[in-house]
Amino acid sequence: MKIIEGGITAANGFYAAGLFAGIRKKRKDMALIYSKVPCKAAGTFTTNLIKAAPVKWDMEIVKLSPYAQAIVVNSGVANACTGRTGIEYCKEMAEAVSLNLNIPQESVLVASTGLIGKQLPMDKILSGIENLVPILGNSLNDGTMAAEAILTTDTRKKELALELELGGKKVVIGGMSKGSGMIHPNMCTMLSFIATDISISKELLQEALSTDVKDTYNMISVDGDTSTNDTVLLLANGMAENPEITEKNDDYYKFLDALNYINTYFSKRIAEDGEGATSLLEVNVINANDKEQARKLSKSIITSNLTKIALFGHDLNWGRIICAMGYSGANFNPEIVDLYFESVAGKVKLIENGVEIFYNKELAKDILSAAEVMITVDIQMGNEKATAWGCDLTYDYVKINAAYSS
Amino acid sequence: MKIIEGGITAANGFYAAGLFAGIRKKRKDMALIYSKVPCKAAGTFTTNLIKAAPVKWDMEIVKLSPYAQAIVVNSGVANACTGRTGIEYCKEMAEAVSLNLNIPQESVLVASTGLIGKQLPMDKILSGIENLVPILGNSLNDGTMAAEAILTTDTRKKELALELELGGKKVVIGGMSKGSGMIHPNMCTMLSFIATDISISKELLQEALSTDVKDTYNMISVDGDTSTNDTVLLLANGMAENPEITEKNDDYYKFLDALNYINTYFSKRIAEDGEGATSLLEVNVINANDKEQARKLSKSIITSNLTKIALFGHDLNWGRIICAMGYSGANFNPEIVDLYFESVAGKVKLIENGVEIFYNKELAKDILSAAEVMITVDIQMGNEKATAWGCDLTYDYVKINAAYSS
Repeated sequence: MKIIEGGITAANGFYAAGLFAGIRKKRKDMALIYSKVPCKAAGTFTTNLIKAAPVKWDMEIVKLSPYAQAIVVNSGVANACTGRTGIEYCKEMAEAVSLNLNIPQESVLVASTGLIGKQLPMDKILSGIENLVPILGNSLNDGTMAAEAILTTDTRKKELALELELGGKKVVIGGMSKGSGMIHPNMCTMLSFIATDISISKELLQEALSTDVKDTYNMISVDGDTSTNDTVLLLANGMAENPEITEKNDDYYKFLDALNYINTYFSKRIAEDGEGATSLLEVNVINANDKEQARKLSKSIITSNLTKIALFGHDLNWGRIICAMGYSGANFNPEIVDLYFESVAGKVKLIENGVEIFYNKELAKDILSAAEVMITVDIQMGNEKATAWGCDLTYDYVKINAAYSS
Repeated sequence: MKIIEGGITAANGFYAAGLFAGIRKKRKDMALIYSKVPCKAAGTFTTNLIKAAPVKWDMEIVKLSPYAQAIVVNSGVANACTGRTGIEYCKEMAEAVSLNLNIPQESVLVASTGLIGKQLPMDKILSGIENLVPILGNSLNDGTMAAEAILTTDTRKKELALELELGGKKVVIGGMSKGSGMIHPNMCTMLSFIATDISISKELLQEALSTDVKDTYNMISVDGDTSTNDTVLLLANGMAENPEITEKNDDYYKFLDALNYINTYFSKRIAEDGEGATSLLEVNVINANDKEQARKLSKSIITSNLTKIALFGHDLNWGRIICAMGYSGANFNPEIVDLYFESVAGKVKLIENGVEIFYNKELAKDILSAAEVMITVDIQMGNEKATAWGCDLTYDYVKINAAYSS
């Protein structure tokens, strides 16, 4: 497995485009992804009871349609809490893509991200779709244009592509992602689109995705708010012509590894690009009894406002970390916990068996001042572990969100 | 029932004192509460797995001792995550109070609040206790000195006293409270001390408190972080000489009403004095199927960072409110939800049957700019309701917490 240049258009047969359709004030706001041939599609979606119209649409398509062939995305308006009109508008988007690309309407996936509660400006959306189709392309730049068009408060585009060999054939997985605020995935978050030319059964494609999001998108938090629009879509068009994966053989696990790599990459990029963030925080809980315990503890730490603000202030307030573990709902013995801070500046142990030990405070402060900080909590109970990602909580997070809809 | 002047010393037989013992930098940091005669004691405590040493101590006393007679409190250091030394220090505090007041050690309750992970400065604590005993008094001022000494980042002291008649006797309930950050009670929060001269059985005293915290302290959130030290203690010394309440008769429910009044008062004061807060937010969920559903929904809204920041920015971003309801875990039908904003500036309906309706945006912004804002969500399912309290999330919250331990 190796990293190659590109993103959503890296795999054979995938085309993309992005443009400014006038939904947002100045930035690109519509993207289209298209595969030359029909794809098997897998998806994971927000568990928020309030699901945006496109989430409801995609859940149906992924479940009922044998194939998908295009994804149309807009930023600026989320098409959530928009009632029947919102559902109609979502269908109209799929219909317009279907007509313009001459593919079945049930093979068009839709995604929206932005402000909740507003209706889509359908005139702009429909002319956006008409203008996207002729500029579809499979160059690096075409993928990048699409990756830029799906951003909202993100400050950086998020793309990655991997190449691996399966059954003697070169296989490529590429993707793009967005997410910056309202990030606390419970069954994936935000928008992530992965396109691969692998040949695999629809069932295993979905299983691979559902398994992997538990350790990737579901382990990040920017602000504890689970969005109404969280969507991860994975398309596989089979053009690599590897022997189709229909059982959990070596090829399946190789694919799972590659998928995990790309999803972990996007999860970290989303966490580090959290609204107003100045640093990426990685929390490892090690030597847990089981995976679920490790996940609960690490996610509780990463979600704690007070821990995130202490990180922003480079403040050695480790009590907040232990406190967040305590209210996580996971059981552990606080009297045998060890805790470490680590970054490019070095590594330091602060707690041994639940109490503070002598440590170099200057060094610890330097460690917390790095752009990527790792906290490791050893709960000394078993052999399982989990990792969660987040960011610091800063003045700018408040600033960005105090006037978001105004 | 009427409000009278005073706080923790308002009820017959209760004395208090507060002073500066040198634990904090400049502000008063130790308080002592004492009853002339032994009291029945009830308590509710943090559900955080990490419980501070004094929480563990008080849980034992409330459970096993028939009587309590004094509460010693320090601010500045929480005595949490302090291992065996912390437990020893807590016992030494109780022992010193016991010796100085000549009462059994098992009748002394202890509470600490402040930084987690540091050991108590026992020399200062012990001389603090010696200096507190001679200045115990039952004037308004003595109560206020104690109420001031338990504060940390709070900007205002919190005291209240009520008078009511039970069985022909005048009965008084007085109390004091503190709390400003790390506020997300799950079984009470922060520190609250209530002293009454009522005569009531220990069992019903505890039941009254346990029932009431579900609708008061447990319904507030400043930052979603459940503290390691949350403690509510309720002492009843029987000096009012009302017929002892030993069953759930009219007198019991009168007492419960008064207790609810005082606990609601303190809950709102804590929420409005949330670290960095500029406004108090009250969320009512009405016409729910059951109480638990209403509580979950209102608490989820009050805990949402994005809702709290929108309030700070007076931003009409109601989508965040609906989003927070959606991930609350409580079921409801988003398509029949109505939503209102209300304050001294007026009242406005924003959502009807789940979608935005035409409303006066100027007025809505004025409503959100008030010092007390009420959001009412009508879920049109049944007849139950719940109220939660919180505050806005501001630059100052970040500022206060970015260098708390430094």
